[in-house]
Amino acid sequence: MKTYLDCIPCFFDQALRAGRMATDDPVLHKRLLDELGRMLGDLSLASTPPETGRLIYQMVSRVTGNADPYRQLKRESTEQALTLYPAMKKTVEQADDGLLTAIRIAIAGNVIDPGANATFDIEEALQDVMEQKFAVCDYQAFKRYLADSGRVLFIGDNAGETVFDRLLIEQMNIPAVYVVRERPVINDATYDDAVKAGLDTVATIISSGTDAPGTVIPTCSREFRQILDQSDFVVAKGQGNYEGLSDYPHPIFFLLKAKCEIIAEAIGVTKGDIILKGMNT
Amino acid sequence: MKTYLDCIPCFFDQALRAGRMATDDPVLHKRLLDELGRMLGDLSLASTPPETGRLIYQMVSRVTGNADPYRQLKRESTEQALTLYPAMKKTVEQADDGLLTAIRIAIAGNVIDPGANATFDIEEALQDVMEQKFAVCDYQAFKRYLADSGRVLFIGDNAGETVFDRLLIEQMNIPAVYVVRERPVINDATYDDAVKAGLDTVATIISSGTDAPGTVIPTCSREFRQILDQSDFVVAKGQGNYEGLSDYPHPIFFLLKAKCEIIAEAIGVTKGDIILKGMNT
Repeated sequence: MKTYLDCIPCFFDQALRAGRMATDDPVLHKRLLDELGRMLGDLSLASTPPETGRLIYQMVSRVTGNADPYRQLKRESTEQALTLYPAMKKTVEQADDGLLTAIRIAIAGNVIDPGANATFDIEEALQDVMEQKFAVCDYQAFKRYLADSGRVLFIGDNAGETVFDRLLIEQMNIPAVYVVRERPVINDATYDDAVKAGLDTVATIISSGTDAPGTVIPTCSREFRQILDQSDFVVAKGQGNYEGLSDYPHPIFFLLKAKCEIIAEAIGVTKGDIILKGMNT
Repeated sequence: MKTYLDCIPCFFDQALRAGRMATDDPVLHKRLLDELGRMLGDLSLASTPPETGRLIYQMVSRVTGNADPYRQLKRESTEQALTLYPAMKKTVEQADDGLLTAIRIAIAGNVIDPGANATFDIEEALQDVMEQKFAVCDYQAFKRYLADSGRVLFIGDNAGETVFDRLLIEQMNIPAVYVVRERPVINDATYDDAVKAGLDTVATIISSGTDAPGTVIPTCSREFRQILDQSDFVVAKGQGNYEGLSDYPHPIFFLLKAKCEIIAEAIGVTKGDIILKGMNT
């Protein structure tokens, strides 16, 4: 997915938010915005949003000297999600359709996203998503891939959300490889975050090699790209992975909540909608 | 009121919105954002938001070649407000407190603001504001000034809103001078817009001399500044006038709806709140 002009004001919002997480110095906050202003002319709209996001978050780290502004928030999100895990596990086990319920919960976890939202309430999101209708729901195709495949490549998104991904992987009940970012960017899950969420107990955790807030193929490692191409099918969580992979010719199920107008329009749904969308499936 | 860092992403939003009103050419839309990016380093946070807004909207006009992108929208807003005028007039006449009701209606008119809002619904706003509690309501002081003064200087804001200002001026029932912007900026009312709203029948219309989206004193004419200083008291509508005049040492009643977090925080209220706030009164 390309970058839209409407993404540009949002980039400034994100840079300011990340800058405030990284440092209390308002002089540096202003410097971030000025520097992003100077970068603008060189940013291509043909790039995907996470490709541009990568450059912006690198700049934030360089200017503030903080390589991981969301470190503390990521830890807290994971801890909060872990306290919710037992109740969610029970909900899935008692549901008529445990798999679909686990999918809903995994989507609810996707609201843990300080890149797209200034504030979020995970418990409220969990309640809401249980009753929300899917705007796109390729569930039959998803179940077919699940029955026919020996394994799944599951690409994670944010720390904390990881705990709910674990629940879905448990429910899918086939061997899974769980993909994280190589280096910290926003609150995206890295190897350590995935381990804290207990994903090492249900999947093999690997890095995609990227430091972009999404799966931006040219920034991924050769090893990951091979694993991706050889995988039976992929489950990709969240906007950043959708933006990076929506044109990739491979069977991928995207699980996300459309958190901004732009991605909603690109998918053909309404902001706030939840989707389970199969591509090339 | 100074410019906050949070205003900067909003400036990009506004430039894009104005650019799209001015031209359909996406190349020019991108150029606007790039140019604003280059301007950023030179913009001072010590300036008020309408002072900066003025430079941005001048740039939009220069780059797009359209000096009045909101012309059509202003006309439509005024026409729509005029169709609502008779019903609102009746509401005021039948109210227990006609003056306070007219104040409420004049504040509701303030939602007609494509600078602050992407979308708005004036009829819904009118309904809402009738029941909404004032977060600040210096009504007693307002009535005292009204009783003691021989005249009022009323500084308008947006086209369309002007029609509801007229209703309030009629209800105030003292000689009024109505102040408009000198040149088009966003959808702010100019002389022609005020006349279309019928303000010439209830007030003397003058220009402040500014082309800023607010009363930015250094950009106002000497004549206006004299009239301002010699006035008994001022009624100033909307955020742009508040931002420009909040530190001005003169009795001013600000009538507005706090349409963004930043101005709400500066005033000490919550976003969405309505206020009638007297300063130096």
